[in-house]
Amino acid sequence: MNSDDTRNTSPVEIEHDAYGVKGVVSLTMNRPDAFNALSEAMLDGLQDGLNGIAQSNGARVVVIAAAGRAFCAGHDLKEMRAAPSLAYYQALFARCTKLMMTIQRLPQPVIARVQGVATAAGCQLVAMCDLAVAADTARFAVSGVNLGLFCATPSVPLSRNLSRKAALEMLLTGDFIDAAQAKQQGLVNRVVPLDALDAELARLATSICAKPVEAVSAGKGLFYRQLEMGIEAAYQLAGQTMACNMMDESALEGVQAFIDKRPPDWKR
Amino acid sequence: MNSDDTRNTSPVEIEHDAYGVKGVVSLTMNRPDAFNALSEAMLDGLQDGLNGIAQSNGARVVVIAAAGRAFCAGHDLKEMRAAPSLAYYQALFARCTKLMMTIQRLPQPVIARVQGVATAAGCQLVAMCDLAVAADTARFAVSGVNLGLFCATPSVPLSRNLSRKAALEMLLTGDFIDAAQAKQQGLVNRVVPLDALDAELARLATSICAKPVEAVSAGKGLFYRQLEMGIEAAYQLAGQTMACNMMDESALEGVQAFIDKRPPDWKR
Amino acid sequence: MNSDDTRNTSPVEIEHDAYGVKGVVSLTMNRPDAFNALSEAMLDGLQDGLNGIAQSNGARVVVIAAAGRAFCAGHDLKEMRAAPSLAYYQALFARCTKLMMTIQRLPQPVIARVQGVATAAGCQLVAMCDLAVAADTARFAVSGVNLGLFCATPSVPLSRNLSRKAALEMLLTGDFIDAAQAKQQGLVNRVVPLDALDAELARLATSICAKPVEAVSAGKGLFYRQLEMGIEAAYQLAGQTMACNMMDESALEGVQAFIDKRPPDWKR
Repeated sequence: MNSDDTRNTSPVEIEHDAYGVKGVVSLTMNRPDAFNALSEAMLDGLQDGLNGIAQSNGARVVVIAAAGRAFCAGHDLKEMRAAPSLAYYQALFARCTKLMMTIQRLPQPVIARVQGVATAAGCQLVAMCDLAVAADTARFAVSGVNLGLFCATPSVPLSRNLSRKAALEMLLTGDFIDAAQAKQQGLVNRVVPLDALDAELARLATSICAKPVEAVSAGKGLFYRQLEMGIEAAYQLAGQTMACNMMDESALEGVQAFIDKRPPDWKR
Repeated sequence: MNSDDTRNTSPVEIEHDAYGVKGVVSLTMNRPDAFNALSEAMLDGLQDGLNGIAQSNGARVVVIAAAGRAFCAGHDLKEMRAAPSLAYYQALFARCTKLMMTIQRLPQPVIARVQGVATAAGCQLVAMCDLAVAADTARFAVSGVNLGLFCATPSVPLSRNLSRKAALEMLLTGDFIDAAQAKQQGLVNRVVPLDALDAELARLATSICAKPVEAVSAGKGLFYRQLEMGIEAAYQLAGQTMACNMMDESALEGVQAFIDKRPPDWKR
Repeated sequence: MNSDDTRNTSPVEIEHDAYGVKGVVSLTMNRPDAFNALSEAMLDGLQDGLNGIAQSNGARVVVIAAAGRAFCAGHDLKEMRAAPSLAYYQALFARCTKLMMTIQRLPQPVIARVQGVATAAGCQLVAMCDLAVAADTARFAVSGVNLGLFCATPSVPLSRNLSRKAALEMLLTGDFIDAAQAKQQGLVNRVVPLDALDAELARLATSICAKPVEAVSAGKGLFYRQLEMGIEAAYQLAGQTMACNMMDESALEGVQAFIDKRPPDWKR
């Protein structure tokens, strides 16, 4: 475990073949005493980690996890309060936005592993991940409004995951929802007991790692692009994407194997 | 209580510091014998009430409520049928739309208090409010189609609150959903027994009134604007909004108080 | 029952006044041995059936159903694999997209009757229908990714019915959801035991057939158009649609009948 006071030590730990699954890379936020707040160092650590994964051939699935009892408490308020200028805040939120958009644009699916409390930009991080698996001990809030700071940037992915009244209630009250509510409202995919969390992540990641990388990366990219289009333009792009995907060797082999009633023979 | 046959008497009653909460303004539709139909007088009463609140410094949260057993039965069909011209109907729906958009653009959050049946434009009114608390006796329908008049304008907010198949089923069948279904589908935030409705409203309103007004009003405005944008433009606007909000005295004090582990000292 | 090897025999059976309800037209995919795969012949059969219905005065509600144990297994993979060219796949997906958009643009509401498994483009078909009633034996998956072919075109309607994390989980894992999950997530409207499926369809179709055709067809068209607009433009179009609808004889009579507390006298 890293020591926070060592210069040049990132608060983000990177592990390859995590959860015992080949191809899974985990980024673990490791400043539990600070509730894994998104300090500048933490933002940099996550951004650097994702940049590395984007270039990696072996990385198939990314897990964003956290050490300690909290998942992530959002921005580092001490850092923020120490530099009270509009220019600093604009730059900070732009940097955080860049990280969030990197998650969405990454070729690999990104899964949040939420073992505890996720608040403000920590809740935003869960909402921005492609998928999320939570322990039943997890809780979620966009609580900035309690301090007079409306969670504006978190509202962007939150309102694209939850129904608008549910999102707005969280944003205006700052109240927590529990893991079961988060699942019912669309913020997370699965909820399991804390001691089953890693097994559930391994199961989900294994399933995705078993698919050809071309289908997964083209599919993820298409998914988000078509969401912002009218339905006709969305269909045009999707049809083109699917026709190209079908010409991939892996798809031609996968379909042939299905016809032949045998497992596909995919080179890895 | 007003008498409906008195000229110049609005069918909308305005109460300040309603539900025992300072800063809460309630607008109560009070034509229970007409199921609080949105007659021209009722539309005017609500519009005038909201216009006044928009200018008010003391108003922090608005509640739209109704007297009697029904919440609101939608447009006043007798009035509508008495003036069968395209120009009249265009003007009427434009006027109703203006009211609905006033709710969304109001700086203050607007909560629907739904104690009974909400149909057609009455259901639309619930959907347009930022938040909604319902009694378990409430029921919801967009029933115009039963009379040969598809609830087109209600479909606008309904389809932005519910999933599309759920919304379209209501619109094509005219069938009622109950309060539990309305909560499950995203039309209301909370459902409580009728005799606990005012306490629940007071609780929700108190929570919002405790937040600095700058954060709430800027946040509400941002929420709806970013919903209509692509995610990148949404993040740009949200980042800018949040940076400005952070420079507010109330946010700087709120964040400092959090760091100091003390309650914020907000001038009211 | 048709025999598949007879030339000129469509795999789609058309029945008028189906389910014992006047005005209901059912299109039944009838290649149960092929799990009702969307072969070119099946796509043509459905397209021709819908084209005929679009011109028909008597057709009020359409049901898309399937013979045998499966609802629809998606594209015909043998046909697809036999013609491995980009141009062929582009043309095939364009043809399928045309069918899907025909469903949405049809003046009549289209209900999916899902008695069994619906996968890939079969799941897409359910998502594109205006409404869907499922047996509790139905199951749903977008399973192309298991063969290396991401269900890109199915993702278009799926992501417009389900929350994005739920849709993406199905698309990335290829896993099935059951009928109860499909209802909870917004993919189908109602779930009933298999032996109650036809009665439930009859009930839903009867309800819609009882409404004036002008209101239903104008309303369905408006619903999808306004969904792709910002809320102000949506309201403008909806207000105009509703004003025109109110001038229809059927609406004027329907509203008058409501005022008179009598059933409407609609010429059929």
